[in-house]
Amino acid sequence: MAKAAKRHVSPPAKGMEGVALDGTVAQPKHGVGMTHWVWDEVEREVMNPLLERQLIVGQDVMLARLLLRKGCIVPLHSHTNEQLSMIFSGALQFWIDGKEIVVRGGEVLTIPPNMPHKAEALEDTTGIDVFHPPRADWINKTDSYLRK
Amino acid sequence: MAKAAKRHVSPPAKGMEGVALDGTVAQPKHGVGMTHWVWDEVEREVMNPLLERQLIVGQDVMLARLLLRKGCIVPLHSHTNEQLSMIFSGALQFWIDGKEIVVRGGEVLTIPPNMPHKAEALEDTTGIDVFHPPRADWINKTDSYLRK
Repeated sequence: MAKAAKRHVSPPAKGMEGVALDGTVAQPKHGVGMTHWVWDEVEREVMNPLLERQLIVGQDVMLARLLLRKGCIVPLHSHTNEQLSMIFSGALQFWIDGKEIVVRGGEVLTIPPNMPHKAEALEDTTGIDVFHPPRADWINKTDSYLRK
Repeated sequence: MAKAAKRHVSPPAKGMEGVALDGTVAQPKHGVGMTHWVWDEVEREVMNPLLERQLIVGQDVMLARLLLRKGCIVPLHSHTNEQLSMIFSGALQFWIDGKEIVVRGGEVLTIPPNMPHKAEALEDTTGIDVFHPPRADWINKTDSYLRK
């Protein structure tokens, strides 16, 4: 891995437990077979006027394809799930670990478990979040922090 | 999830243990912090004349950005790691679980642990493989089955 590829590297966050989400860990779906998915045919959930989401859930990993329109804000929160945010187009500003980081098309932010983060779309932004384990609150639609 | 989005659903494969790869499970990198990555600055590894690869390794999840030129063949193999193959452009034919499946741009194949699969690029193809846990053989470059 080229060291230059890493723009920011920080130790895991401490504190800020007040924003930790409960019930975010889905049980692994053991015994589920191979599946061929077509993103454009996956249910598109309108979370709020600025946020659309689609989910592909594997056994221990989940993909969420996201459209965040300019101005969309994901409130400060944390979860025990590891998160890898891949941005394809647009620009998403994160507030995380005491830093402000703008992640653009062709870039990835790896967020360790339990690290609080907030985000705002500076432009219309598309990307995929990868979670391990899958986010139970997203699957069960108990993610009220995004439905405002 | 729209049922129509699932083109093929199969139970896990049985048998074909002869192609199972050993040493594919990386230990989780606990305590690694948040990292901002730029794909174009990540080391690009030329595996063979038809295959290039870049890796972003998280704690329990790994991303591999792949360029498979037309005619690239990934030999039949299996591993205990769960694999989600996201194709962005081109077309990748899989032989998996007794089926032939072509995965194109905007599509995903979710491959459960230990399911043997072979692939061939029908066109120049780009995509990202997601693995849980990270592929130790890819990180350690002991993946001789791809270096031919």
